[in-house]
Amino acid sequence: MKSKIVSKEIHLKKRPAGFVTEDDFELVEVEIPEPKREGEFSVRNIWMSVDPWMRIYMVKGSRIMPPVELNKALSGGCIGQVIESKSDNFKVGECVKANFGWREYWAAHDADSSAKNITKVDPKIAPLEYFLGLLGITGITAYVGLFKIGELREGQDTVFVSSAAGGVGSVACQIAKIKGCHVVGSCGSDEKVRWLLDELKVDYAFNYRKLGESNISSELKRACPDGIDLYFDNVGGKHLEAAIDNMNIFGRIVLCGTTSQYNDNNNTSTTSGNVNDPSTPTLSSGPSNLSLAVSHRLRLQGFIWSDHNDILNEFNASMSKWINEGRIKWKESIFEGLENAPKAFVSLFKGESLGRMLVKLGPYTATSL
Amino acid sequence: MKSKIVSKEIHLKKRPAGFVTEDDFELVEVEIPEPKREGEFSVRNIWMSVDPWMRIYMVKGSRIMPPVELNKALSGGCIGQVIESKSDNFKVGECVKANFGWREYWAAHDADSSAKNITKVDPKIAPLEYFLGLLGITGITAYVGLFKIGELREGQDTVFVSSAAGGVGSVACQIAKIKGCHVVGSCGSDEKVRWLLDELKVDYAFNYRKLGESNISSELKRACPDGIDLYFDNVGGKHLEAAIDNMNIFGRIVLCGTTSQYNDNNNTSTTSGNVNDPSTPTLSSGPSNLSLAVSHRLRLQGFIWSDHNDILNEFNASMSKWINEGRIKWKESIFEGLENAPKAFVSLFKGESLGRMLVKLGPYTATSL
Repeated sequence: MKSKIVSKEIHLKKRPAGFVTEDDFELVEVEIPEPKREGEFSVRNIWMSVDPWMRIYMVKGSRIMPPVELNKALSGGCIGQVIESKSDNFKVGECVKANFGWREYWAAHDADSSAKNITKVDPKIAPLEYFLGLLGITGITAYVGLFKIGELREGQDTVFVSSAAGGVGSVACQIAKIKGCHVVGSCGSDEKVRWLLDELKVDYAFNYRKLGESNISSELKRACPDGIDLYFDNVGGKHLEAAIDNMNIFGRIVLCGTTSQYNDNNNTSTTSGNVNDPSTPTLSSGPSNLSLAVSHRLRLQGFIWSDHNDILNEFNASMSKWINEGRIKWKESIFEGLENAPKAFVSLFKGESLGRMLVKLGPYTATSL
Repeated sequence: MKSKIVSKEIHLKKRPAGFVTEDDFELVEVEIPEPKREGEFSVRNIWMSVDPWMRIYMVKGSRIMPPVELNKALSGGCIGQVIESKSDNFKVGECVKANFGWREYWAAHDADSSAKNITKVDPKIAPLEYFLGLLGITGITAYVGLFKIGELREGQDTVFVSSAAGGVGSVACQIAKIKGCHVVGSCGSDEKVRWLLDELKVDYAFNYRKLGESNISSELKRACPDGIDLYFDNVGGKHLEAAIDNMNIFGRIVLCGTTSQYNDNNNTSTTSGNVNDPSTPTLSSGPSNLSLAVSHRLRLQGFIWSDHNDILNEFNASMSKWINEGRIKWKESIFEGLENAPKAFVSLFKGESLGRMLVKLGPYTATSL
């Protein structure tokens, strides 16, 4: 009989004050119970992701989620492989996606899988880590935002994406290009501008930092002489105001996810903005030109991808196809080993990295399932 | 054969600088051509309305409409009666609604009636002046805003209306009450609070001026302990921000019409706000809490009633019924005679009057049509 598993996990030792540091975290060893009763299974993690929004919950939570507990394992997206199982639904060797990042191993019961959002992923479809990004929340968010909230019109719309070199932004840009739209992106460095133009093939890109926030509106006028039909807002603040200045009648503004939650929590000191692109600016005061929303009949709509599960099958089919056709580019920054997860997290706020920040926790073991 | 009609009309003599005065206008006599060719007809006006938004176009227009021309008759809503006609569509004695206010008489051709928005109105349905208010743009705006943009849920929604004692606001409050909703209104005087509570029977009303704009959010928390589902925004600024603070998940914010156009035109010096309630505050900076639109999946949508003509028959039927059942209260302030139209207009900006501002231009002549 197998001995109990000893797993390492990362706890929050103290709530970060100002800039988060590695000292705020602690590596702890715990025992993971082996599956005994019917339905129980245990998982070894292969990948985990770190996201800037986690910082919010390390301090005080938000109106929709409490803060994380001190001296308990942190949570976050992970991909793992079932290593022991008394479940008919989760068999040894199968890969799963869950919210049990920041640890090497974890145990669960298949009766809880729905509530805990544990889902199987197929390693044949794409590299496993893609399920934490392109085929995960990042991709779904871009897809839901463009199609369900933004009602993207194929071949017709002029689309502006802020934080366009970030995770959600870069996917939104590429999907809009695949759909034959005119796409303009903003980002925070010349390197990103080049990436957007050369690799993602957007029609126009600009570095808002070099430009100055007060010039975004006139830059958009140049980039979109016929106006903007759909603005995918990852940023808020001056970007939103500048977009509103240039929206066409019946334009749609997609207010996208996590970025905004920073300031919701008055968390401006810790991060520069977007969940997928730490170099984006913080949301500041609201747009002073909302009057144009009336005369131009604009719609501004916030959303969270998880309200739109009805689109998941369509999303998975489309995104898998685009990935296999090589039509979607994707950047990852990878740290190795759980002990480096705090370092990966801290690096998010230095604004140097590009793309999805991941930590590799162990190998994938091919099985003959 | 009848002699030519000599009509008086009001011209804009000079563009108002700051507070509009009666000296900015001029009363001019012109000749109205009599109907000669097939389809021509002439009309004697009975009522005209004056609206604060007209002030914008007296100075510099907006992005969607040029400024009015000097030394030409001003435009605005009117109700008149056909006095001579060579048209089969507009017969002598019939009543029409058009945009040829600020004058006693006017002539038209029935081929232009659609483009010029000349429509017949039935004096049997309601007092004629109602077609400039309850059964006109004011009523339609409230109706479209609540149902088509706000997707009002009968018997379920908590509805907050700003500028609730204004034209659009007061109608929106009453429709929401008819539909069994919990209705909260804000306004700018204790007299209006009393009117809202005692006459319109809203569930809660407050005087935001006495309260202070920074306290609107906490007042709404008291008035709507279960949150707001639909905010009918006639104001923007701090009201909008306070509403967003209190919106429920999937809440809808109806960004309503003309108020906002003031600031669109940087016209803040001339009016205090809402087209129907000059005592409402101006739209200032945008809401700083738009991040909540993401976490709470809010939708903010601007609209103009004229995009929604598909709802006109339904609106006319519903509103006529409610009027006849005495379920809608309506206030009017009436000036007599075209020569007093400038005085009526100027009085809009003194914030003293309550209800729809009208000018009576002549009698209705009952006919045996």
